Amino acid sequence: MSVDRRDPKPQTLLRVPLALGKIGLLTLPDDAATYVTRVHRLGVGDRFLAFDPGQAIEADAEIVALSRKGATARIDATRPASRRPTRRVTLLQGSCKGDKMDAIVRDATELGATTIIPVITERSIARPDAARADRWRRIAVEAARQCGRGDVPRVEEPVALAALLARSRAPEVIAICLDPRAERALGAALAGIAGDREVSFLVGPEGGLSDEEIAEATRAGYAPARLGSLVLRTETVCAAVLGGLLLTSVS
Amino acid sequence: MSVDRRDPKPQTLLRVPLALGKIGLLTLPDDAATYVTRVHRLGVGDRFLAFDPGQAIEADAEIVALSRKGATARIDATRPASRRPTRRVTLLQGSCKGDKMDAIVRDATELGATTIIPVITERSIARPDAARADRWRRIAVEAARQCGRGDVPRVEEPVALAALLARSRAPEVIAICLDPRAERALGAALAGIAGDREVSFLVGPEGGLSDEEIAEATRAGYAPARLGSLVLRTETVCAAVLGGLLLTSVS
Repeated sequence: MSVDRRDPKPQTLLRVPLALGKIGLLTLPDDAATYVTRVHRLGVGDRFLAFDPGQAIEADAEIVALSRKGATARIDATRPASRRPTRRVTLLQGSCKGDKMDAIVRDATELGATTIIPVITERSIARPDAARADRWRRIAVEAARQCGRGDVPRVEEPVALAALLARSRAPEVIAICLDPRAERALGAALAGIAGDREVSFLVGPEGGLSDEEIAEATRAGYAPARLGSLVLRTETVCAAVLGGLLLTSVS
Repeated sequence: MSVDRRDPKPQTLLRVPLALGKIGLLTLPDDAATYVTRVHRLGVGDRFLAFDPGQAIEADAEIVALSRKGATARIDATRPASRRPTRRVTLLQGSCKGDKMDAIVRDATELGATTIIPVITERSIARPDAARADRWRRIAVEAARQCGRGDVPRVEEPVALAALLARSRAPEVIAICLDPRAERALGAALAGIAGDREVSFLVGPEGGLSDEEIAEATRAGYAPARLGSLVLRTETVCAAVLGGLLLTSVS
């Protein structure tokens, strides 16, 4: 685990990712035991915060025993995860090759996406099946554990673009279609939008969305916008856009 | 080349990356010939814009001959590159493992960094030598060609953090040290800053900057700030921060 190797601030409990079950004693898995006792040098009687992004819950915990073989902690009652995104953001990602999609799921989890939907488009080379979503769900849980996020984005099964555009959307959601040739800058498209307003981003696959697809998305209410004036690789767009949303937040 | 497979808008010339030399006839390399004649179906008499990020120059060009073997273009006089970042941004990247640093140089080039300086810190596992910078310069040129950027970021040789902090900085440059535990959000740190004001970002390596290094950077004038509340991987920070800067621009 390479999350935060520094000692926590005195007032902040160390966050430790754990699979949480019932209240009571838990023998820590080796990686968690090393993280807690070696990296952060917690001892018997020290408290930490156990979090389980897969279930979006957390619990207070206290180390009650240490031995050469490992560490045991007492886990208190669980409660809903505290550290989760304040804004709902949906990433509609044009399906791209496996390793790129894996990296995008990781980035999206770290940078606060709340829903990820792989979208099969005209130029999508990869056409993942529903089972593939399970892999991305596991990647999202691992990314959340590493970055300290208390929940995970919902990863939906892949959907064809036409089917996605036919779905009804809540009118309060800001829907954007990223297009490097759009006249409008994304910053202008989002200017004045409240910081907690839900946003959906449609991002093309490696070869981009076709002109026809952009026109269809526009008719379905997705406003075309570009980030800068260059043609970004699809695997760069997610981190850049979600980072941008985080930056526009001042808290 | 996977830059933009769609036909250019009528008023926008197709941008084609080429190594530009003297005025006159140029036999296009195979990849450029395929891109121009097959992907975009340009023919004899059609014009395009040739750009050479390595030299930060561009030139008008016209296809004058096509054969089975390839394409020949007439290249007009070169001029300084037109499509380059409007804001000066320096990425001071804590040195991390080779493939991550390669990916960061690619992201930084696409997202408008103008200078990249690898910084050797306490927790840097990789300690690249000066020759390594040549590799990153080549990666930057290739990334610029792919995304249509007219110039490349300057990639400096690796420097130790202490030596970097001892350098004098122009007082008008906003200097930020990314720290996931900073009280201040990056959005707050940059609020009200003019869109063309120069910014420098110091980003830690895989294990982050140590508390002492953050204190030293703070004394040297780098304001600690965080992007969101999670612990980002070092290879995510660059794209998220630079994307954020692009998003705060409305043009």
